Amino acid sequence: MARQSMREAIVDAAVAQFHSKGYNAAGVKDITDAAGVPKGSFYNHFDSKESLALVALDRYGAARRIHELAEPGVAPLARLRAHFEFLRGETVAADFTRGCMIGNFGAEIADHSETIRTGVRASLAHWASMISGALAEAQQSGDLRADLDTERTARFVLNAWEGTLIAARSGRSDEAFDDFFDTVFGTLLAPPHTPAAGRS
Amino acid sequence: MARQSMREAIVDAAVAQFHSKGYNAAGVKDITDAAGVPKGSFYNHFDSKESLALVALDRYGAARRIHELAEPGVAPLARLRAHFEFLRGETVAADFTRGCMIGNFGAEIADHSETIRTGVRASLAHWASMISGALAEAQQSGDLRADLDTERTARFVLNAWEGTLIAARSGRSDEAFDDFFDTVFGTLLAPPHTPAAGRS
Repeated sequence: MARQSMREAIVDAAVAQFHSKGYNAAGVKDITDAAGVPKGSFYNHFDSKESLALVALDRYGAARRIHELAEPGVAPLARLRAHFEFLRGETVAADFTRGCMIGNFGAEIADHSETIRTGVRASLAHWASMISGALAEAQQSGDLRADLDTERTARFVLNAWEGTLIAARSGRSDEAFDDFFDTVFGTLLAPPHTPAAGRS
Repeated sequence: MARQSMREAIVDAAVAQFHSKGYNAAGVKDITDAAGVPKGSFYNHFDSKESLALVALDRYGAARRIHELAEPGVAPLARLRAHFEFLRGETVAADFTRGCMIGNFGAEIADHSETIRTGVRASLAHWASMISGALAEAQQSGDLRADLDTERTARFVLNAWEGTLIAARSGRSDEAFDDFFDTVFGTLLAPPHTPAAGRS
């Protein structure tokens, strides 16, 4: 296997292993076995499991279609809903397991690895900024209450999503997803002029 | 050490070890060392690390003052806010580490242990039911919009809290907490008659 393709195979295997098992439970040998490369080749490509995890985190984030949050042609709140529906579909397809690798690393490893903590923080910040952009567009088009702080609301919605995944996995059901979609899109981000947005 | 006090020492040490290190990183020997008991004594008290983890989860949950959500004498939404302020204080006091053991187990282990998954689900369900009770009281006293489904909203708020802890830990700052309190109490659970509850 060529050097570059061996590295790619290790990264792909790491994403799958870290995502399904977690950071501590996925050993270097699990990853090299899954990649079909000798364990000894690992350190030709990566300094440590930790540095591989950071690359895997970026690879994972890049596949979450976060860029679609900024694509024109679909109304911004519909785009945001479609984004979370795509992510929900991933978890449902995995029988309500795995969740989000970014959140999983945040819960399991951020306290213990400054490298991974910084990576998780950057991933969440980028993701939240893309959500915030969609919310700001929705405000400009009058589809969202003007009094919401879009940056704060975007971070909150993303954090709520990460917690929703924990509940969906522990419940092995759609309940937590239904709670998220109903509350976020039906109440928090409800259009300014419907009764669901509150009464004054 | 008497048998019962040895068991208690193991459980107390397990709560601290699981909470600070996570499930996989906290080994049986770490726990017995922290408890000051011989490793060999562990299996006199517990069948497995997994069964100890379930006991530790209950012990952890019991110390989270969840019962205070039902205590009369304080307005229900003030009670709910005080509850989350208490929990926020725990994380701040730990320099933005550790988070919630229930959520951590949900993210790290629920996929891999039916015992722990069921324990996490039960812990979240009990907690959400107590939050729902406070929300229902708030509706009865006119402090909360009558159109909110209190059970669904309670689960959503709890899930949002679990995700907030992940972001607070990865950011090592109050930002995620501020996002939570501002959005949950300033918008989602805002009083029915203030402008912040929306315009119609």
